[in-house]
Amino acid sequence: MANKLRIGLLGAGRIGQLHGTNIQNFVPTAEVVVVADPFMNEKTEAWAASIGIPATTKDPEEVFANPDVDAVFICSSTDTHADFIIKAAQAGKHIFCEKPIHTDISKIKEALAAVEAAKVKLQVGFVRRFDKNHKAVRDTVASGKLGAPYVVKVTSRDPAGPPMSYVAVSGGIFTDMMIHDFDMVRYLSGSDVVEVSTVGAVLTDPGYAEYDDVDTAIVTLKFANGAIGVIDNCRTAPYGYDQRVEVHCEKGAVQDNNALENVAFISTADGVESAKPTYFFLERYNDAFVAEEIAFVDAINNDTEVPVNGIDGLEPVRIAIAAKKSLKEGRPVKLSEIEG
Amino acid sequence: MANKLRIGLLGAGRIGQLHGTNIQNFVPTAEVVVVADPFMNEKTEAWAASIGIPATTKDPEEVFANPDVDAVFICSSTDTHADFIIKAAQAGKHIFCEKPIHTDISKIKEALAAVEAAKVKLQVGFVRRFDKNHKAVRDTVASGKLGAPYVVKVTSRDPAGPPMSYVAVSGGIFTDMMIHDFDMVRYLSGSDVVEVSTVGAVLTDPGYAEYDDVDTAIVTLKFANGAIGVIDNCRTAPYGYDQRVEVHCEKGAVQDNNALENVAFISTADGVESAKPTYFFLERYNDAFVAEEIAFVDAINNDTEVPVNGIDGLEPVRIAIAAKKSLKEGRPVKLSEIEG
Amino acid sequence: MANKLRIGLLGAGRIGQLHGTNIQNFVPTAEVVVVADPFMNEKTEAWAASIGIPATTKDPEEVFANPDVDAVFICSSTDTHADFIIKAAQAGKHIFCEKPIHTDISKIKEALAAVEAAKVKLQVGFVRRFDKNHKAVRDTVASGKLGAPYVVKVTSRDPAGPPMSYVAVSGGIFTDMMIHDFDMVRYLSGSDVVEVSTVGAVLTDPGYAEYDDVDTAIVTLKFANGAIGVIDNCRTAPYGYDQRVEVHCEKGAVQDNNALENVAFISTADGVESAKPTYFFLERYNDAFVAEEIAFVDAINNDTEVPVNGIDGLEPVRIAIAAKKSLKEGRPVKLSEIEG
Amino acid sequence: MANKLRIGLLGAGRIGQLHGTNIQNFVPTAEVVVVADPFMNEKTEAWAASIGIPATTKDPEEVFANPDVDAVFICSSTDTHADFIIKAAQAGKHIFCEKPIHTDISKIKEALAAVEAAKVKLQVGFVRRFDKNHKAVRDTVASGKLGAPYVVKVTSRDPAGPPMSYVAVSGGIFTDMMIHDFDMVRYLSGSDVVEVSTVGAVLTDPGYAEYDDVDTAIVTLKFANGAIGVIDNCRTAPYGYDQRVEVHCEKGAVQDNNALENVAFISTADGVESAKPTYFFLERYNDAFVAEEIAFVDAINNDTEVPVNGIDGLEPVRIAIAAKKSLKEGRPVKLSEIEG
Repeated sequence: MANKLRIGLLGAGRIGQLHGTNIQNFVPTAEVVVVADPFMNEKTEAWAASIGIPATTKDPEEVFANPDVDAVFICSSTDTHADFIIKAAQAGKHIFCEKPIHTDISKIKEALAAVEAAKVKLQVGFVRRFDKNHKAVRDTVASGKLGAPYVVKVTSRDPAGPPMSYVAVSGGIFTDMMIHDFDMVRYLSGSDVVEVSTVGAVLTDPGYAEYDDVDTAIVTLKFANGAIGVIDNCRTAPYGYDQRVEVHCEKGAVQDNNALENVAFISTADGVESAKPTYFFLERYNDAFVAEEIAFVDAINNDTEVPVNGIDGLEPVRIAIAAKKSLKEGRPVKLSEIEG
Repeated sequence: MANKLRIGLLGAGRIGQLHGTNIQNFVPTAEVVVVADPFMNEKTEAWAASIGIPATTKDPEEVFANPDVDAVFICSSTDTHADFIIKAAQAGKHIFCEKPIHTDISKIKEALAAVEAAKVKLQVGFVRRFDKNHKAVRDTVASGKLGAPYVVKVTSRDPAGPPMSYVAVSGGIFTDMMIHDFDMVRYLSGSDVVEVSTVGAVLTDPGYAEYDDVDTAIVTLKFANGAIGVIDNCRTAPYGYDQRVEVHCEKGAVQDNNALENVAFISTADGVESAKPTYFFLERYNDAFVAEEIAFVDAINNDTEVPVNGIDGLEPVRIAIAAKKSLKEGRPVKLSEIEG
Repeated sequence: MANKLRIGLLGAGRIGQLHGTNIQNFVPTAEVVVVADPFMNEKTEAWAASIGIPATTKDPEEVFANPDVDAVFICSSTDTHADFIIKAAQAGKHIFCEKPIHTDISKIKEALAAVEAAKVKLQVGFVRRFDKNHKAVRDTVASGKLGAPYVVKVTSRDPAGPPMSYVAVSGGIFTDMMIHDFDMVRYLSGSDVVEVSTVGAVLTDPGYAEYDDVDTAIVTLKFANGAIGVIDNCRTAPYGYDQRVEVHCEKGAVQDNNALENVAFISTADGVESAKPTYFFLERYNDAFVAEEIAFVDAINNDTEVPVNGIDGLEPVRIAIAAKKSLKEGRPVKLSEIEG
Repeated sequence: MANKLRIGLLGAGRIGQLHGTNIQNFVPTAEVVVVADPFMNEKTEAWAASIGIPATTKDPEEVFANPDVDAVFICSSTDTHADFIIKAAQAGKHIFCEKPIHTDISKIKEALAAVEAAKVKLQVGFVRRFDKNHKAVRDTVASGKLGAPYVVKVTSRDPAGPPMSYVAVSGGIFTDMMIHDFDMVRYLSGSDVVEVSTVGAVLTDPGYAEYDDVDTAIVTLKFANGAIGVIDNCRTAPYGYDQRVEVHCEKGAVQDNNALENVAFISTADGVESAKPTYFFLERYNDAFVAEEIAFVDAINNDTEVPVNGIDGLEPVRIAIAAKKSLKEGRPVKLSEIEG
């Protein structure tokens, strides 16, 4: 297996370690050859050693400069994504970048231009596309057997809200949380969003209001293909991670339920009791992360299109900006109003 | 509507009133013209009046003698069924008879002979065949699209056991309760039972043992068509009426779940909670009783085969006798050992 | 049973016959004593006779003037509802009125004033409140055990669109179809709607556009209690009547699935196949109609509050007007902008 | 991590490679230090190298003699299991042994005696105990919250039958396939089996008859605690791996459904269509294998009881022998009739 794709991992936080561990254990056609993190410490080095990563560094530049690195996984803090994309592209490395590329449209476009110029591949980390359940819904729609899509619906609720310290820097619910759903509706409908209208509320914790944010939001959408849609988000759902999608089409509807922790159930005089939905994204999208990594590696090895490209990285950011603007201005906002 | 089928109702207990009320309200092609019950009293007469039954009597002979009666519903006590069948047949009336015809095989055969001689129709009250769920299972098997049946399974549990005074005279779990399931497996498989083997236990109430009865039983079955099967019964299931059937075939399996009281569900940190199964036979088989009555009336009006005939009334009794014998003797019992 | 509530039925079309038949068969504490319909003919008279209604007339005035009528069921054409309410109230009759009372707010208010003045009871025919599934959802929310409601969601799709001749006079999707859902969200949330925002599309049949109508619409809502919500409607859903509600609350979510035609399922190499949802409102809300009728009769007999009062009749009309205005003007519309 | 448990893997066939790969990837407290297989070849060596196993050999004796091996995984052919247990025990190694230990009771007892004498740990590979769904059922029963168990039911159907060449040497359906279910009923009920009664048939392929085997079987069971039970097996189920368990207890029932390939579903005019059950044991019990391995390693590292001990390995073999005898002799067979 001399021709494994050699990966440089940028960032060894939670999501970086997740990707690194997955690649070493489950992606036989790739291997992590170096991990860079400015906060590299003994614990991180021990983790790297335990899964067979041969080199570590505090300096990302070493990764870009390393001729033995074929591709990078950008798992560092969001503000570094665009610059690291540019540097990696200039160094001729293929790029997997966690979402979002940036919160600033110009910066995203600059990064995409660098990728375009370098003719490297860029895949953005919208992992939910690789969930087998959502994928089954999308594949049914894309097959055309249900005819044209009419209504696209996505429900997304986190089990528990983040700490207020995170809310303060998160960029708000639309950029931080609903961005996944903006990607999902594009994926499900096979169409771009042309207008959004938002209603939001602070219901779970008054703290959100202090950061000019909401914790609960519903956004309606118009798509370029004529379909309409709706996304609802809430920061807290004590029963677990609520992740459901639905597409109502001409000849039928396709949807998914939540995956439950197990399929056992108890019947008593009080009713029938089943397990809760899986707790959060690590539980629900565990296998999807692996599928995402394999898809990226395969696209490079086979020189095919990546399944989530730069435009797929850009558009959800634009929709998020539009949704936030709609909430603020109390009116529908067209995507044509947003830089892009 | 001069040509409604005119029905004489024999027995105005719970099941008699159920049939009478249903016919008056839901069977537009029939009408109850008289009800006979030796215990006829003011309350029963008020019930009859309230649903427009024009005549009541304490004497069943009046019904047999009445030239305005086209058909009878025999809903009296079990020991009278066979004699009433004979009298009704001799009077040229068509007959709907609640199960079982009798617990004595010879007596059943005598009744069937009278029906045969009089060329009247006889339908036996195995109401579960008319449940839309079980019927969907059977129709799938009968369609042949799943190929040959391999395994037939029936689960049947009552929400709560009967009073011991009833157990004393019930004839035991096989004749009183599992008889419905013996009919069901014949219905589902489209085949006769040729051998049974029983295991039973007294688990819910030691009182059953005093009457030489069990409260929990599992009976395995061999069918004439080569399939095998199993029925399990329990006298108590606190979560409601557990009524599930399943047929595993060459190309797939078809089964039904319990119908629940409603389709709402609550998701909390404790799990997902749904409603219980419907409580008992009146709730679960309510619509099936009406379908059964209509099927009988239609068979007469159209002069077609009744859907549950005399042999269908006889065979479950024979299987019940075999199952009881198997339990007692601790060995498989062939149906050929039982009079028939 | 001398003290049955005596009902005069106004209108013997589909919904009038439904109520009439139900009352005669399933509401033992009431009886229909007369039915009035300007199009009374032999067939209608035969129907009335078949279920024991002793009198028929072409003139509704006879019903209002009849001292033996305690209450009326107004099942005539929509444009007559308000006037009939006024006449019935002035005659001292209690009133059950099919929805909507009127499409004109002033006219509704006039009718409600007449009811108020006469101190009779008025119940409006929002039958879905009596569906056991939706009721279980609402009762869970109302019990408070899940805490405050955050998000209220209603999906409502008809199996097939109405003929264009009906669309022409229907008043549009919001008044004709979504009005049920506007009532439902008030019922579920226990709160009034204060603002709506609509997105709509013509997707199933271009004919809707000719009548300035849409066939698919999503309306977001803000409630007085701070919760937010969304309703989606589509005129066609080939899989049957799609009727689902959901309330996400502080401590959990409660929702219902569609009731299916049966609970059998087939497992083959192609997947697991279940029955479709029940076809349309007669199938899905059959039992709810009876519960609605009983609730009305009980409220009169026990002199208690009716479960769906005049305000409950008025508000959904106001919300429908607001939703239509929002669609037309492309902006959120506050209920305070609508006469009320 | 100097104190990882050092494992010698005996047998590098399908199940051996499964355990080896799992341990290397998912059991951070253990490592495979050597793999022995008499058919060791280049391909197997490449597999071992790819997951970081440092040594390979054709001679199992090298593993027993190796002082750096703390425990062995016996994944070799069934006839070698007992002897390898004895050798490993004599060498002071802890032992994980795939089921069955042997088909001969005396040989099993000899192996268990060796384990007892050496005071090493022995865990037998009944992996289904570690399936989260079955475990949830068992844990509910074991918690006692549903009261005493009354009826234990297990359904187990393979997606497709094995080749006839395998049937020839498999030992028959009871030893080869139903043995898992015999273990499962002991696990679920928390009780020993005292009597079995079998009915079987050749339905899927006449070839089974040539080997004096059946392809479809139902076995009823009596337990020491008074409960009764039933297992049904079929060699073919085109819809996938059918694995359901159910325990009906005093206060309710607990059961599991099949895990489906995904939780998406399509609603059309033809019905509601879901995914099939997961295909076979690798798909369904994938996570259970890892849980099983971790449980074994933990029991050694913490010096606690293994969750599936020698008696748990012995009893299912005895029950299988009894079930086969019951089929042959056409009578219930007591476990006391079987050597043990």
